[in-house]
Amino acid sequence: MQTILILGTGKSSTYLIEYLIGTAEAKNRQIILADISTEVAAQKSGNSPFVIARAINLKEKENRQAIIQLADVVISMLPAFLHPVIAKDCLELKKHLFTASYESEELKGMKDEIEEKGLFFLNECGLDPGIDHMSAMKIIHEEKVAGNKIKSFKSYTGGVLTPESENNPWKYKFTWNPRNVVLAGQGVSRFIRNGKYKYIPYHMLFRRLETITFDEVGDFDGYPNRDSLSYRQIYGLEDIPTLLRGTLRRAGFCQSWDVFVQLGMTDDSFVMDLPEGFTTRMFVNSFLPYDEVRPVETKIKDLLPWVTDEILEKIAWLGLFEDKELPLLKGSPAAIFQVILEDKWSLESGDKDMIVMQHLFEIETPHGTKKLTSSLVCKGENQTYTAMAKTVGLPLAMAVDLFLDGEIKVRGLHTPVIPEIYDPILRLLEMENIVFEEKVSFD
Amino acid sequence: MQTILILGTGKSSTYLIEYLIGTAEAKNRQIILADISTEVAAQKSGNSPFVIARAINLKEKENRQAIIQLADVVISMLPAFLHPVIAKDCLELKKHLFTASYESEELKGMKDEIEEKGLFFLNECGLDPGIDHMSAMKIIHEEKVAGNKIKSFKSYTGGVLTPESENNPWKYKFTWNPRNVVLAGQGVSRFIRNGKYKYIPYHMLFRRLETITFDEVGDFDGYPNRDSLSYRQIYGLEDIPTLLRGTLRRAGFCQSWDVFVQLGMTDDSFVMDLPEGFTTRMFVNSFLPYDEVRPVETKIKDLLPWVTDEILEKIAWLGLFEDKELPLLKGSPAAIFQVILEDKWSLESGDKDMIVMQHLFEIETPHGTKKLTSSLVCKGENQTYTAMAKTVGLPLAMAVDLFLDGEIKVRGLHTPVIPEIYDPILRLLEMENIVFEEKVSFD
Repeated sequence: MQTILILGTGKSSTYLIEYLIGTAEAKNRQIILADISTEVAAQKSGNSPFVIARAINLKEKENRQAIIQLADVVISMLPAFLHPVIAKDCLELKKHLFTASYESEELKGMKDEIEEKGLFFLNECGLDPGIDHMSAMKIIHEEKVAGNKIKSFKSYTGGVLTPESENNPWKYKFTWNPRNVVLAGQGVSRFIRNGKYKYIPYHMLFRRLETITFDEVGDFDGYPNRDSLSYRQIYGLEDIPTLLRGTLRRAGFCQSWDVFVQLGMTDDSFVMDLPEGFTTRMFVNSFLPYDEVRPVETKIKDLLPWVTDEILEKIAWLGLFEDKELPLLKGSPAAIFQVILEDKWSLESGDKDMIVMQHLFEIETPHGTKKLTSSLVCKGENQTYTAMAKTVGLPLAMAVDLFLDGEIKVRGLHTPVIPEIYDPILRLLEMENIVFEEKVSFD
Repeated sequence: MQTILILGTGKSSTYLIEYLIGTAEAKNRQIILADISTEVAAQKSGNSPFVIARAINLKEKENRQAIIQLADVVISMLPAFLHPVIAKDCLELKKHLFTASYESEELKGMKDEIEEKGLFFLNECGLDPGIDHMSAMKIIHEEKVAGNKIKSFKSYTGGVLTPESENNPWKYKFTWNPRNVVLAGQGVSRFIRNGKYKYIPYHMLFRRLETITFDEVGDFDGYPNRDSLSYRQIYGLEDIPTLLRGTLRRAGFCQSWDVFVQLGMTDDSFVMDLPEGFTTRMFVNSFLPYDEVRPVETKIKDLLPWVTDEILEKIAWLGLFEDKELPLLKGSPAAIFQVILEDKWSLESGDKDMIVMQHLFEIETPHGTKKLTSSLVCKGENQTYTAMAKTVGLPLAMAVDLFLDGEIKVRGLHTPVIPEIYDPILRLLEMENIVFEEKVSFD
């Protein structure tokens, strides 16, 4: 009997857990769900006789290791910063490890030891990172095998609402971690275009947009995200003239969001400690120049002349011009702003989330330049069976399943950029209706 | 015999050391100059028989403490991040400590122990912080004693060039640490104006300016700097409606400098690793949108429509549009940009630096609102006897002298905001021609 330990049984683990429960009996597997309490863990057990729920205290090494010791493979759905600790335990106790998080520097430092011990550590096997890597690498490898040269690769992903759920002026609600949404894009975005290195500071990001179109669900704003340059090596595209990874929001979102970035309302670098009675309107005003007569709305337009009445109305819809006491008085601007947004951007019953991903390739072939666009649209069913949980959880579950079946034989530290890993997972994802549609044209 | 240890004998210690050497014989004092090598330390000894030069290895506790042990008082001119280490040594060995750096959280944590041991630790006793505190507190205390209420206090300081030395289009050269100049203003600036809290993100800072005028040397751009809010408590002005501390640059500088801030060229958060042959022009272009035909100059004007031809000429004067290989290929944008600037903004022989400081008060009196402006202009003599070294070093030297004379009797952790410290120092500074000029008018 094989034992799978799943650390963290929150919202994003739903599909992951159900997928593995589904094969537990036939494949003679036991699943241990571990979370902050046995009750929390048990919520996802589905009363399966193959599931055991356990409380785990991550801070206590003895308790943590006693549970990890029970497993053959460990899946961590914990916050990424905990992964180095879990990885060390897995090394010590000789357990295989699977996560959907970025391969950190700490993990990279364990590479040799993972190999020496014959273990398999797979990271970045969720949606983004995860499905993006797998679907892109399949195309990249195919084109390379065909002897073609990839001149340009841009890849965009977004977690958004289904068009039917876009029932507010922003056409946006929080479909995943609100804090990550508020902070999205911070740092300096880096990419290469036609051989030119490009660096975009955060305060310029939301005006350097590209429109990305999906036949089924329309237009989106795409903006570059993080360090795309490092993917030249990861994807084996060292000499590619154009490489850009980015994020998608519904068309029009970014220009309005940029108002908050320009004012400094998404800053997370210092703590505001505001007096009682401080209102939402005063919060906005604190980022605007002092003026004895001009109201907040006018000052925004004076400071940012590109702000239209439509944008002002969207800001007003969020309640930001109201003299209502702030729900949080002590915190970073981003933390306070997040609480304000959560009041307006929470999902209502019936709202559904959607994942949109698009790869745009330009490939030199003997028949001219091929433009290949590969698009994924995945809609959630409801707020338990979300597109986010599905696209993050299923690849990870499938990887574990394939590994325990002996279909994935490689060992060491990996991301799913090799055919042995991505080929069977992409095939299985298609069976779950996670399918990329390709369009090809020649210049 | 009293022994004074001076740690760090670099450029900014010139006046400090000479002042203390000047009184050593009469007051029966010995001065130990300690730096990275005996030779470096000896350069500032002036062949005085009262001075001993010593090499110190700050990383070795034994060596460090052996030297500190010799002293009665320690003056640290070392970089601020080293002060917690020196302070701990001083606590352990029961030595008094004097610095011109901000009182850090680590130092604040030592408050009780400093008091228990009857020691005197004085920080922020240079120019800014230092002379700014002292000159302001003298006015604040006088107005309080007179029963008046301070409604507004703004204080600006700048390290600039004398008007005669402003012989380039920027009217600016590096007169102090270039790195600090390139990074100046980063973070979020905070102040209060007419009872309204104001927060300015870095990318908005250089367009939120106030013109500050000195009769003798003309107009300057003033921009808010760091956290002015915390000074309400430090200055005993808890209920003041307007409090702002800021930085001065020659009028016109900030708007042009803002181009670099907007493009992201002053970012210090990540390392660029550029290929050989990368030129200054390519460096600038890497922060601009890609375009097949438009040149760098046009793209700057398109992205930042407020950029005039005059500003472009200033940028061109720095060599930034030239196809000359970068002097540094690996480093943060700020680090690379700094090296480019150092080539153009270095002082030439004959150039002189200047310190400008201005306090602007609005005070409620029985005779109406009094506007009080107190201004300091201090010009350097040459590149050894700079205004910066004079205004940073003399207050610290005077504080030590007064302390050893028994004129300053207070013990514990302090900044020079109490009359016992600032009164005699301000009097001595006047004798060195560091004099504030006051102008008063009534509304």
